[in-house]
Amino acid sequence: MVRRAEAFRAKQGIDLRTGHRVEVIDRKRRVVQGATREGQGFTQPYDRLLIATGAAAVNPALPGADLPGVHRLKTLEDGRRIKALLSGGGVRRVIVLGMGYVAMEMVESLRALDIEVDMLKPGPAFMPWLAPELASVVHAELGANGIGVHTGLRPQRIEAAGGGLAVVCPDATLSGQMVLAAVGVAPRSGLAQEAGLALSVANSIAVDPTLRTSDPDIFGAGDCADAYHVVTGRKTWIPLALRANRTGWAVADNVCGETVALHGVAGTAVFRVFGLEVARTGLNIAEAGEAGFEPVEATITSSTKAHSFPGASALWVSAVGDRKKGRLLGMQIVGREGAAHRINGAAVALHAGLTVAQFFQADLAYAPPFGPAWDPMLTCAGQLLKKM
Amino acid sequence: MVRRAEAFRAKQGIDLRTGHRVEVIDRKRRVVQGATREGQGFTQPYDRLLIATGAAAVNPALPGADLPGVHRLKTLEDGRRIKALLSGGGVRRVIVLGMGYVAMEMVESLRALDIEVDMLKPGPAFMPWLAPELASVVHAELGANGIGVHTGLRPQRIEAAGGGLAVVCPDATLSGQMVLAAVGVAPRSGLAQEAGLALSVANSIAVDPTLRTSDPDIFGAGDCADAYHVVTGRKTWIPLALRANRTGWAVADNVCGETVALHGVAGTAVFRVFGLEVARTGLNIAEAGEAGFEPVEATITSSTKAHSFPGASALWVSAVGDRKKGRLLGMQIVGREGAAHRINGAAVALHAGLTVAQFFQADLAYAPPFGPAWDPMLTCAGQLLKKM
Repeated sequence: MVRRAEAFRAKQGIDLRTGHRVEVIDRKRRVVQGATREGQGFTQPYDRLLIATGAAAVNPALPGADLPGVHRLKTLEDGRRIKALLSGGGVRRVIVLGMGYVAMEMVESLRALDIEVDMLKPGPAFMPWLAPELASVVHAELGANGIGVHTGLRPQRIEAAGGGLAVVCPDATLSGQMVLAAVGVAPRSGLAQEAGLALSVANSIAVDPTLRTSDPDIFGAGDCADAYHVVTGRKTWIPLALRANRTGWAVADNVCGETVALHGVAGTAVFRVFGLEVARTGLNIAEAGEAGFEPVEATITSSTKAHSFPGASALWVSAVGDRKKGRLLGMQIVGREGAAHRINGAAVALHAGLTVAQFFQADLAYAPPFGPAWDPMLTCAGQLLKKM
Repeated sequence: MVRRAEAFRAKQGIDLRTGHRVEVIDRKRRVVQGATREGQGFTQPYDRLLIATGAAAVNPALPGADLPGVHRLKTLEDGRRIKALLSGGGVRRVIVLGMGYVAMEMVESLRALDIEVDMLKPGPAFMPWLAPELASVVHAELGANGIGVHTGLRPQRIEAAGGGLAVVCPDATLSGQMVLAAVGVAPRSGLAQEAGLALSVANSIAVDPTLRTSDPDIFGAGDCADAYHVVTGRKTWIPLALRANRTGWAVADNVCGETVALHGVAGTAVFRVFGLEVARTGLNIAEAGEAGFEPVEATITSSTKAHSFPGASALWVSAVGDRKKGRLLGMQIVGREGAAHRINGAAVALHAGLTVAQFFQADLAYAPPFGPAWDPMLTCAGQLLKKM
């Protein structure tokens, strides 16, 4: 907890009410209605209303998903429950449903506790959003760290078995003492939907650059709300921390009558899994095609340090450009170091709408401990230019 | 050596002649004239001529600068001579003249060999091109690693003393067994100047974006030539590896009749000294003022990792913006990690001509191992915006 309820009340004079569930937004009467934890009804008028309900971890739609030992990881309480279970010492193997960011961060933590881990997902491709060569590097890293990676396995049910749990798939059954369901998140937009507010991508709440919903007196911010994508100009829903935090600051100004318009997101994201940094920004080639671009992709392998410098390892970079107008559309980087912060150079290029040719001219930093004289992003952009 | 002379001759059919010193460029007759190492004169006609003479380490204008034990570090031969001297074991203390990039990289190598080091420079400020708070972090790092840092010491002469060398200043004499003169580099532009070609900043050879000198049949590339600065639009001379390499590729196309125009440099540079990464791009506040901007500076201290993540250390960021038009003009970052690659996000912003407000909206990468949810560059841009 960064700040407790009392701090809001005492230091900032905010009438913060925990244990108050809003059940209805009555836009005609401009009130919200609901009930307290003790069951007492309440009605609260508003001049302006902010919906900041966040996102919820998706429950796997499986028989047995509510068995003890099946966990999700979204809230602090979730984390405490998992920690308590693991500290008991009886968990020797965990089955992780899903292969997203939460899954990746959890398998590393579990292996650090010397727990065996199997991950599974129904789709055939491991991290299909990554360029294939980069995905295979991440796949190999998981394998090298003893993770069982099972793509193409669709769970049918979870059942109690031998004092533990079994995840039953058509062709295989995986067993362990805990199941972690990390199959994604969904915006908590039910209240907004029932109030007739416009929804958007993935049922997120549609907001304009000033975070206004389709009702100008109601605002949406954080993981429940959508955003413009700076590359496509279209709505998207990419619930990540910086955007959520940024909308919090901006919506406060807008609610109070100032106008702060946000540009949008580039879909920049990074995670670390074991010894690897995995970073992306913008569109991958499939997303670029869907958005109407004529995408071209180039993937290169470079180095984390200069030729002559000791301790170098491989750095993989993939970039996507638009053949029609020459724009840089996205970039991905995987390596043991230098991927996470490097991606920001490409992210800024996407915000600025640079072409691949313009990006290729960027004067990026060089010193032997940090990469080759031509930053790997430039080398990749150069290869991409040749294919465009 | 990345490639030997024979490779150029055999694999690429290039008539490469080592041991041929060009002494005159005769533009009227379109020939170069000179002499071989053996003293034989030669005359070579040209259709197009490329001057790629690089830069030379500046010799300190001091009595005794030619004494044995006084070294510079620019060529491979320089490096071998220093290595041979150090391997003899008689060098217990080195005096470094200068506090630039070469000096910084050398003092770390010397300390790794357990050699005592004193650095001196005439000016009163340590790294005056860095924001004062960042400079003091680097200064402290040198101190913590046992380097004697002496600003405001102007050497008068070097003399042999007690079997070693003494650098004599008005108020102090520093002694050691070796002196490293790392007082900067200068373009090797003498030939060009004698041929009447236009010179530029710091006597570098003036070239246009296609690397043509003031004579359209003569090109200049590498550390001997100048460049446009993407922030000021003016000529500058910042001899660094990426620019030199980039001009090599571009000039080859231009000499052969294709047209490749280079945008220019942002002055992006990075070095590591002991545990610190020190990175910069664009203009500092003094340079911005000289270039006619109305500069405002903000400096912040943030963290290399998220609040809750173990192993965090401080990251210092300083940014300069123009109050008149709002543009981002430069950024500097110092920290134990995450400075070198981070600076590229700001470098791309300079190429794109982004305002501080636009840069502040960039969707940069976040995960707990790599920084706070608001990247320190964004936090600094936000503080800068408030001051503008």
